Amino acid sequence: MTRVNAFYAQSGGVTAVINASAWGVIDTARRYPERIGTVYAGLNGILGALHEDLIDTAQEPLENLRALRHTPAGAFGSARYKLKGLAENRAEYQRLIEVFRAHDIGYFFYNGGGDSQDTAHKVAQMGEQMGYPLICIGIPKTVDNDLPLTDCCPGFGSAAKYLATSVREAALDVASMAKTSTKVFILEVMGRHAGWLTAACGLAGEKTGDAPHILLFPEIPFDEADFLARVKATVEQHGHCVVAVSEGIRTADGKFLAESGLRDAFGHAQLGGVAPRLAQLVRDQLGLKYHWAVADYLQRAARHVASKTDVKQAYAMGKAAVQLALKGQNSVMPVIVRVSDEPYKWKVGHVPLEAVANQEKKVPREFIREDGYGITPACRRYLAPLIAGEDTPPYRDGLPDYVTLQNRLVSRKLPPFQP
Amino acid sequence: MTRVNAFYAQSGGVTAVINASAWGVIDTARRYPERIGTVYAGLNGILGALHEDLIDTAQEPLENLRALRHTPAGAFGSARYKLKGLAENRAEYQRLIEVFRAHDIGYFFYNGGGDSQDTAHKVAQMGEQMGYPLICIGIPKTVDNDLPLTDCCPGFGSAAKYLATSVREAALDVASMAKTSTKVFILEVMGRHAGWLTAACGLAGEKTGDAPHILLFPEIPFDEADFLARVKATVEQHGHCVVAVSEGIRTADGKFLAESGLRDAFGHAQLGGVAPRLAQLVRDQLGLKYHWAVADYLQRAARHVASKTDVKQAYAMGKAAVQLALKGQNSVMPVIVRVSDEPYKWKVGHVPLEAVANQEKKVPREFIREDGYGITPACRRYLAPLIAGEDTPPYRDGLPDYVTLQNRLVSRKLPPFQP
Repeated sequence: MTRVNAFYAQSGGVTAVINASAWGVIDTARRYPERIGTVYAGLNGILGALHEDLIDTAQEPLENLRALRHTPAGAFGSARYKLKGLAENRAEYQRLIEVFRAHDIGYFFYNGGGDSQDTAHKVAQMGEQMGYPLICIGIPKTVDNDLPLTDCCPGFGSAAKYLATSVREAALDVASMAKTSTKVFILEVMGRHAGWLTAACGLAGEKTGDAPHILLFPEIPFDEADFLARVKATVEQHGHCVVAVSEGIRTADGKFLAESGLRDAFGHAQLGGVAPRLAQLVRDQLGLKYHWAVADYLQRAARHVASKTDVKQAYAMGKAAVQLALKGQNSVMPVIVRVSDEPYKWKVGHVPLEAVANQEKKVPREFIREDGYGITPACRRYLAPLIAGEDTPPYRDGLPDYVTLQNRLVSRKLPPFQP
Repeated sequence: MTRVNAFYAQSGGVTAVINASAWGVIDTARRYPERIGTVYAGLNGILGALHEDLIDTAQEPLENLRALRHTPAGAFGSARYKLKGLAENRAEYQRLIEVFRAHDIGYFFYNGGGDSQDTAHKVAQMGEQMGYPLICIGIPKTVDNDLPLTDCCPGFGSAAKYLATSVREAALDVASMAKTSTKVFILEVMGRHAGWLTAACGLAGEKTGDAPHILLFPEIPFDEADFLARVKATVEQHGHCVVAVSEGIRTADGKFLAESGLRDAFGHAQLGGVAPRLAQLVRDQLGLKYHWAVADYLQRAARHVASKTDVKQAYAMGKAAVQLALKGQNSVMPVIVRVSDEPYKWKVGHVPLEAVANQEKKVPREFIREDGYGITPACRRYLAPLIAGEDTPPYRDGLPDYVTLQNRLVSRKLPPFQP
């Protein structure tokens, strides 16, 4: 077997644990020095490969690399950059292969969501077409938990734990204040099409009547009158009402409640602001005092309250990616396979990239309460182990001590990329 | 010395550690059974006294009371309810004294901010006027850190730690994404008139150039053109820009940027929504992609990332309140006196309530960088010890295990209160 280098890149929205996957890749690759030379990381994801901005992780002090395990966000830079189809844009794929060839890269590890697995799959195809031996392995990642074929996605469990914790805390706050002040609290969470993070908020309550009282899923069409009637009834019964709402809720005609008109590089609408919209409804239609919060990046970067399960699985996916590559698997992605709920047991499996690409796993109807506003016991059984355990980062001077890598680039060997 | 009962109530916006002060009162009172009988707590603050809704803390299991130390928000219910002046509304003050007399209450502990200390002071005056022997002690509390005469306020340190942590995490996120996506991230924090929480966000960065790049204080008039120029320059220099903004920023003519038109029971404008307004400016004037978050109640309820210093001081203030009362001090409030910055040393002092009432301690100009957009080393020296140390709550099933008290009420002895 020959010894070749590896390329690792982060793609799309980052998470609290994507760097733990990076460390899983690097740490594991270093255990096979006869097979894998240097792990290069793409500066700003796939752009690093296109522009030959390759970070030499061998130059990074070991303690920095180890700190990746507890550092949120994308330490090498991520990118929202979707390569077009092979037919439309061969040039970019060819360039990738040229860069890989120039740096003797035989392994391509791509850490991202559904869009990114599509890219990884296409790179694999191009490698074949160009007769360049390249093994392409996807590594799952997304706080949205919407990748198919894996039981869950690294990044989700920590965001879920953060949100359930935050809902539980804010609910105690509003309950304290409700007699004379705020009656309705609305928390907006991420999840464009899939309501997994909304569902996670439901873990904050344990018995009937506990907050959160209303969950608004993107999977369930938003009915204004029904929502308001429910808020009113909840305030009458409990004195206050806690709502967790997905940024992506839509009315029955398919319109996002919070469409801002902007679109990102993947063509997705940029959302945000559904919480203040609902708050306005509550004020205007019910005359109730409200507060609202939008967690936004706080939820997906909250490494300080990460799920131990999630951190373990993120590392395990990076490790498995290297092991699959060394076994000669190509164009696959490691996945998490649930063996049992209680006690929670899981193992690593793998699936073909083409089966993953561009699919979204939504919250199944049987996980959403019949009335559409809560989670079922089956959903709770699914979610509970994913937020289990704490994995507290080290603190220094009262704050989590995260690493910023030196990210030294290797010398370029090719002319600049002309897109 | 006679043995009388005590009354404790929580007032105004709650915090992550106000219950630690409650436990400080109850735990300490129990050490003096020959002087203090039962500690009654007001259901929903001062309303509990007016309506004779008195919670008998002696009925509460000890393990529940002990859990107050790590449970955020107001476990007995708080109230935004300001008693009018004695001249305008003697009836309410007289009712309080009647309820205290009916339940043999000789100690009144009032846990709140500036408005509440004003109330406590007036209750003390009424006790004197009505010839009822009552000792009134204020207990400081506010995430806003705006009480005068105390070095800091319990509740602030934990909210500060949460915000600095969140800014550090979200800043890593936006730095990862900036090349192809979000360039500007805006976090809105509490602080109507005083920018202490905004200042705390500044702790997230350690050296020049670190995020947050721009802090917007309510103490500094907001200048749109200057702000936008600074955002633009920051993005040009660092690739991204992180902004922390107080909900209470105003333009030079004194107008709140985010006035919603609603007012609370104290007559304060209800604010919220300055982050999306700034984001809109950034988009429309600079064409930069943005994300924004509004922490709202999440910041003041975030017991999961509480400051150890803050928890200690909250308990100490409750304890000191009881000790001051037993020494016969009346109409005073214990305060935190800073002895030294490094090593951080503090002791308990006390001040007259009338010196505290209705005053706001703003961030002094020497704590704000000359350009108005950051904190000075002096500010950092002041803030650093307040977020020091972790005091993690117990976890159960992946989430902080907070207590909900049984809150059993004592039998009423008086006719209902007719306001």
